[in-house]
Amino acid sequence: MFKENEDKESGFNVALSAALEDIHFNDAGLIPAIAQQHDSNEVLMMAWMSRESLEETLATGRVCYFSRSRGTLWRKGESSGQTQTLVELRIDCDADTLLLKVDQKGPACHTGRRDCFFWKVDGDKLVLDKDSLIDPDELYNKLP
Amino acid sequence: MFKENEDKESGFNVALSAALEDIHFNDAGLIPAIAQQHDSNEVLMMAWMSRESLEETLATGRVCYFSRSRGTLWRKGESSGQTQTLVELRIDCDADTLLLKVDQKGPACHTGRRDCFFWKVDGDKLVLDKDSLIDPDELYNKLP
Repeated sequence: MFKENEDKESGFNVALSAALEDIHFNDAGLIPAIAQQHDSNEVLMMAWMSRESLEETLATGRVCYFSRSRGTLWRKGESSGQTQTLVELRIDCDADTLLLKVDQKGPACHTGRRDCFFWKVDGDKLVLDKDSLIDPDELYNKLP
Repeated sequence: MFKENEDKESGFNVALSAALEDIHFNDAGLIPAIAQQHDSNEVLMMAWMSRESLEETLATGRVCYFSRSRGTLWRKGESSGQTQTLVELRIDCDADTLLLKVDQKGPACHTGRRDCFFWKVDGDKLVLDKDSLIDPDELYNKLP
């Protein structure tokens, strides 16, 4: 579906249900999903989605990933309270990457930082250049 | 290196050569790299880097990926002329995703569009909502 229609002009559309069949999940059944804050355009994080987590995200409007370490659905913010609300979901030309425009409540990163990309290459150094908004101990222990 | 230092404050730094040893490449020796236009913050594309392509990118300042389909280094723009100049390179908390702030010349997408994310979910439809800047036939046939 994606390749054969890439030369169409804007406005062309297909049924979402058909398009979902042609999304390329990898051998583990996952696709990378980039989360971008919808208004500032800052890139917050990258995580992975299964077909189930993608469909749940589209159905609920609350972003749900697939946790590779836990092997389960990961409803972003379920332990920290720092949820992501879906604003827009895009699929790339090769249908092997998702771009999620989201409204991130507080920090997106498990370290309490706003985003996960806090290590910057600077010459022959790698520099940590962002601080936590919230102490991660507070973030993960505040729910009953 | 990454995990054990994630609670440090901004300004903390390590030697880049040591950090590169701790980057998590997948079983195929690759890491996802998000390319973001440095000034507008638009997300242009996602591709993969090998250690060799990452080191070449840092050394030359011209973005070089690893093409999974061709199994070779892919110097972005080598056939199309639409190069990416590296402005900033960041590594995420888990050291398994790269964020490249780049200056993209012309279209980043092989379809001639500025970016690869031209399919947008809209209710029960998937809508193509971006047009090509340059005809892809022109893009790939203009070099001798």
